[in-house]
Amino acid sequence: MSREPNVIYVGRKPPMNYVLAVITLFNAGNKEVTLKARGQAITTAIDAAEITRRRFMQDLKVNKINLGTDEVQMQEGGTRNVSTIEITLTTEAKPKEEAKATQKAKESA
Amino acid sequence: MSREPNVIYVGRKPPMNYVLAVITLFNAGNKEVTLKARGQAITTAIDAAEITRRRFMQDLKVNKINLGTDEVQMQEGGTRNVSTIEITLTTEAKPKEEAKATQKAKESA
Repeated sequence: MSREPNVIYVGRKPPMNYVLAVITLFNAGNKEVTLKARGQAITTAIDAAEITRRRFMQDLKVNKINLGTDEVQMQEGGTRNVSTIEITLTTEAKPKEEAKATQKAKESA
Repeated sequence: MSREPNVIYVGRKPPMNYVLAVITLFNAGNKEVTLKARGQAITTAIDAAEITRRRFMQDLKVNKINLGTDEVQMQEGGTRNVSTIEITLTTEAKPKEEAKATQKAKESA
């Protein structure tokens, strides 16, 4: 799973960390970025997607959302089910807008 | 919003409460049930959808997932953005299966 270059695993960090990761991957030329999370981190993943879309990349579209369930081994023994989410974001930027976005990123760097 | 008869607002109760609500609405004849949640309750909504689909209604499909953002008034003044989710579940049961499901529900009642 760690081989996929355009997948971000969302954990316990603040949403803005993942927002930055999403923007970085899009600026690196990816047309599609996927956020994966499970359990309480699901809220963080959705926060990151919403913040990116509303504040930084207005042309971003939520392309696909998959729900799932993982079986997690407990320390005390036994297993527990944990819900998972995969949010796939795509950019529909036209060449011109894309160029502008790249320029903006360079300016703020 | 509270007029919609097939919408369940997910809050702080355990996921099984909402699982029961979903099953009840489907057994009442609804072809579509929507779970709405925001903030940390999003995880509970996804848990409820997954438990219903995997443990109780195998023919259930996640038809649509919408993400959104609500502005929430803070007690200390000011506003904060909270992510929201709407999960629409549909049953694709054929008449025969549906009859069986109803019968099962009656048996366990």
